[in-house]
Amino acid sequence: MLLPEAVLINGQTGSISPETGRYTKRLSELRQIFQDRTALETMVSERNDPIIYEVLEYKKEGSDLFFGTTIMEPGTVGEEFFMTRGHFHKRRDMGEIYYTQSGHGVLLLESRDGRSEVVRMDPGVCAFIPPDWAHRSINTGDEKLVFVWACNVEAGHDYGVILERGMRKIVVRRHGHEAIVDNPQFA
Amino acid sequence: MLLPEAVLINGQTGSISPETGRYTKRLSELRQIFQDRTALETMVSERNDPIIYEVLEYKKEGSDLFFGTTIMEPGTVGEEFFMTRGHFHKRRDMGEIYYTQSGHGVLLLESRDGRSEVVRMDPGVCAFIPPDWAHRSINTGDEKLVFVWACNVEAGHDYGVILERGMRKIVVRRHGHEAIVDNPQFA
Repeated sequence: MLLPEAVLINGQTGSISPETGRYTKRLSELRQIFQDRTALETMVSERNDPIIYEVLEYKKEGSDLFFGTTIMEPGTVGEEFFMTRGHFHKRRDMGEIYYTQSGHGVLLLESRDGRSEVVRMDPGVCAFIPPDWAHRSINTGDEKLVFVWACNVEAGHDYGVILERGMRKIVVRRHGHEAIVDNPQFA
Repeated sequence: MLLPEAVLINGQTGSISPETGRYTKRLSELRQIFQDRTALETMVSERNDPIIYEVLEYKKEGSDLFFGTTIMEPGTVGEEFFMTRGHFHKRRDMGEIYYTQSGHGVLLLESRDGRSEVVRMDPGVCAFIPPDWAHRSINTGDEKLVFVWACNVEAGHDYGVILERGMRKIVVRRHGHEAIVDNPQFA
């Protein structure tokens, strides 16, 4: 029998307890998504292949919903801020919510027909991600970016499209400022 | 076209912006759920029918999920703490999450076959409510209890069962302490 449970979330560290699963993404696993491959390889070798983000989840067999946290480290690869892979959901009728707990960033979204949108990620902002919008989180601050996400267990992830062709916009630090610009490598 | 959006949530007041709907429950609308009807009628007439709780929501046509906040006032009716009506979902395969932002309370749950469970509601606790568990929130603190909830738009509410027969447990203040006891009026 599936029982109710209290899941303690630390909005500063992103820890959840109990936690049913997690994965960690290091820079070497994200080679495809950054523009500056030279800067990337230098960081992988000289900075010991840093962690870019971790995803912790609470998922129970028999539940329609699941939720968890994403913990993003601050930093840049060349001029691009650390970011997640970005994905559509497999289920085109299922969206998601991202509720920022600490840190500052940008949620970059792209509809199936190529419209770009941005939602600021600041503490207290719950981003509504409609069905069939690709989404990628980008830590533009100088501390961890921590957010709680929730969606249907059946939503699924489709990383392929974004990995192959990128997103139409990139988020970079230029002259000390954050800028959202066209992706010169967009296929 | 359904667009992404930033929804700002104030964890202290429970306000959400933008907000697409809300309702307010005053004590006179909750006559059925409290034990002490004399104390209730006195409060309705002498304390101007106080607000017990408000529910604010963000719901978009075409989204699978919706979310919002519940803002519960502190207080008691007789010895019972202020509480929500309590409900099952119409969809027996759909649960919910309740993420407490401020205040302190108790989430009282009851499975379809009559098992009672309690999850503490304290800031940072995300309560996992499995499908087909009735749930009722109870503010046992002396400040507002504010939580963010999220579920499938199709989950629906079935208030009838709990309104008619109550829940097996009640949460009361006795000798200055919170206590979870058997409901003497449980039908």
